[in-house]
Order: sequence, then structure tokens, then C-alpha cells
Amino acid sequence: MPDRIVTACVVIIGNEILSGRTQDTNLAHIAQRLNEWGVRVEEARVIPDVEDVIVAAVNDARARFDYVFTTGGIGPTHDDITAECIAKAFGVPLVVSDEIARRIRQRPALEDVMENRLRMARIPEGATLVDNPTGGPQGFLMENVFVMAGIPSVMQAMLSTVGGEIEGGDIVRSRSVTAYLGESQIAAALADIQGRYPNVELGSYPFYRGERYGTTLVMRGTSVTDLASMLHEVKAAIITAGEQPVSDE
Amino acid sequence: MPDRIVTACVVIIGNEILSGRTQDTNLAHIAQRLNEWGVRVEEARVIPDVEDVIVAAVNDARARFDYVFTTGGIGPTHDDITAECIAKAFGVPLVVSDEIARRIRQRPALEDVMENRLRMARIPEGATLVDNPTGGPQGFLMENVFVMAGIPSVMQAMLSTVGGEIEGGDIVRSRSVTAYLGESQIAAALADIQGRYPNVELGSYPFYRGERYGTTLVMRGTSVTDLASMLHEVKAAIITAGEQPVSDE
Repeated sequence: MPDRIVTACVVIIGNEILSGRTQDTNLAHIAQRLNEWGVRVEEARVIPDVEDVIVAAVNDARARFDYVFTTGGIGPTHDDITAECIAKAFGVPLVVSDEIARRIRQRPALEDVMENRLRMARIPEGATLVDNPTGGPQGFLMENVFVMAGIPSVMQAMLSTVGGEIEGGDIVRSRSVTAYLGESQIAAALADIQGRYPNVELGSYPFYRGERYGTTLVMRGTSVTDLASMLHEVKAAIITAGEQPVSDE
Repeated sequence: MPDRIVTACVVIIGNEILSGRTQDTNLAHIAQRLNEWGVRVEEARVIPDVEDVIVAAVNDARARFDYVFTTGGIGPTHDDITAECIAKAFGVPLVVSDEIARRIRQRPALEDVMENRLRMARIPEGATLVDNPTGGPQGFLMENVFVMAGIPSVMQAMLSTVGGEIEGGDIVRSRSVTAYLGESQIAAALADIQGRYPNVELGSYPFYRGERYGTTLVMRGTSVTDLASMLHEVKAAIITAGEQPVSDE
């Protein structure tokens, strides 16, 4: 039976990531979490705070993938334009969410400060809310597009609440083994093994640690038996190449 | 005089980034380095080791941006398919680079191991080499597409050699100031300031550190005088909001 595959695209919105000023960590977190829910991140895009670019990227992604997750651009300042871009992408107006506005008003503020904070209550018409367990303004879900904050702690809190909204497919599991050998020493054996396991993805990730080089072989697939069997063969190939598997998980 | 803008797209190739197993750090490094050369990274894409996807992403990126930088997929194993995908994207055959092959042969190996290593000597016809100061096989440049390794230390070594091949535009400089206040307290003032400096990009990046929240205001533009003048105004706005600028650079 072929795998039931459910896909996602992560759209990271923010000039600060593209300038190299901020190191993104949201992609890795989202990918790991979605994987547990049976959703595979098949692409990520990092784009600037520019309306046309955001609208085009979201429209492209929501057509090509089952789910889209955006991070960034939902704060109260002039450079936070994600909500209006999502509305434009879907061709609907921005409306005020009373529920978000109520939460924002719970924290008192001067009138002009409150007015800016209420910018965060604007969502595309038809969107539902994504809860924000940190107590701040919520994110939202518009059809298959989840719109979340960019601050990692807030994004993680939001993401932790959306599992129930997602219909995942078969869960990809992974096994891996590391050996201190050059990839070329084992490349032919790996290609042969990969050829015999079309449903398991076998990746070789070389590294230099201190003065030593090695590679980590990672197997990803939905069948626990195929994974175990492939891991056994990869370990045998390492031994045939004259080395020992030093760790596996 | 309008800015002379030169753009780039970074294409990060590798299942391990999309699965969340490996945290990418190449984008931030490339962005910072290119910025010094007057090249702005305007988009990044993270894509899997899948031929059609790589070919389409490279062809899209090389048409839309002045330069493209790829990382990953140029090793000796079966999952390293970047070189053949670039050749396919340009509609040219893969050929053996004698110069890369010579370097590979300098390190002795058994015949079958050498054969795998020589996979790394294959480049698209017409490509020139990107040096690899670590002593390993070189990367390559095909028209406006730089193809580099995925291992950060190797990628960084390769990138350090390509400055001479790049014709940059006006260099974007940045100034920033941090304050422990909520973004909403200063949002109206920031929008007003941004409106009067169309050539400087003003970003507000909120954070939580320990128990305190604050925001860092980052100004990016090519005019040193505009930056200094905007920084002055942003600091004044922080003081008007009742706080002190706690650091600037």
C-alpha cells in the first residue's frame, strides 16, 4: 500500500532572516513537530516583508502543498503586514476579531498604544484563531494556511495548539548510524542498498569533527521493518568497509 | 540617485534541513558575506534532494535574481544530485573537470573508492570552478549560479574565494538600537519616521529575554547620513515613550 503522504510548506517572513541578522530556528522546530503529526515539510521559503512577494509566495504554496505555515509579521508595527497580505492572497477583507481584541484589551495601555496593539486583532474574513498560550494575541488559520508569530517561543506555543486541526498521513520514522569513514568508501554499497529499498530514503551526511571526518547515514520511511532491515545492511556495509558503526539511534 | 541594487537567492538543497534534523546556518553566513559585497539576499528556498524540484527552483531563481547560491548535494553518494540537476537546468551535459579529478587523485584510495570520489569531478559543460581552500573537490560557477558544498566549514571556505567574481551594488549598512518597551508604545512614531525615510528600511524585532520584553529597531540603507539621522529620531522616540535606548550599534 503506498504511503499516505501529507505535505507542508513553511513560509518564513522577515527581512531580518534574509539579512543574516537573525538565525532562523523556526523551520527546524516546525519540521520536527509536523513530522510527529504525519506531515512532511517539503519546502521552505524565506521572503522579505514585501506585500507582492508575500501574496505570491502564499498563493503558490497553498496551491502546491496540503498545509502552509507562516512565521513572522503579525506584530503591531508598520513592518508587520502578514495579516493584510494573507487577506489579499485569499481575496477577502481584513476584519477585526472581537476575541483577539478582547484579549488585547485585558492588558491596560494608553489610548494611542492600545490603538497600535489593536492592529494585531485584524484577521482575514473567514479565518479562525490559533491559540497563543503565552497570553498574547492569537494567530489564525485561513483555509490551509496557519499564520503564526515569528518569535520562536511564541511560535512554538501557537504551534503546540494546532495538532487537532491537522489531518496527518503516515508518520515518517528515522534510524541513523554514524561511522568515521569517508563517504566514498561506502558510496557504492549505499547506492545498492537504496536501490533495493525504494520506500526508504537513505541520506549520507558527512561531517568534520575536530580532526576526524565521518558520515551519518540517515534512513527515513514509514515502515519500521524496512527501516530495521536497511539499518542492518548499512551497518554491515560499514563493517565491510573496514570500520565500525560508532552510534546508532 | 537611486540605489544600485544587486540581488541574490540562496537555494539550500537537502532533506536533512527540511526534516528538521539539521539546523541550517548557511543562509545567515551567506547573507552576511554577500551584504559586504553589495549583494542583497532577497529570497531563500530550502528544497529536497529531488531532481525535478531542484531543476525548477534553480531555473526560477536564476531568472529572477542577479545571483544564485546553492548549498548541498555535491558529495560522492547517490543522494548527491546537485551537479546533474544544474546541468539539466541549463540544458548542457555533465563533463569531467580534469582539474577537480587531479585534486581528487592526489589523495590515494582503493580503485572502487576512487571511482566514487570521482563523481565529485563532474560539472556542467561550460562551468568554471569555485576554489575549495579546505583542499577537497572544488565547487563550480555556471553563469550566475554558484554551486557550493553543504558542510558549513567547506561552504564558507568556498564562498570566501568568490568575491572577485561578483559585481556588487551599493552596500547596505545598518544601525540598530534596543529598548525595553513594547512595540505598541512606539509603533506610531516608527510608522511616522519610516514614512519620512523611504530609502531606509526600519524593522522592529521584539524579543523576550528572561522576564523582560523589548524590541530592537534595525535600520538598513545605503546612505550613512540618512541612517544616522533616522537613528537619532528613533532614539528620541524611545525617550518620548518614557524609556531609554539601552544599546545601539
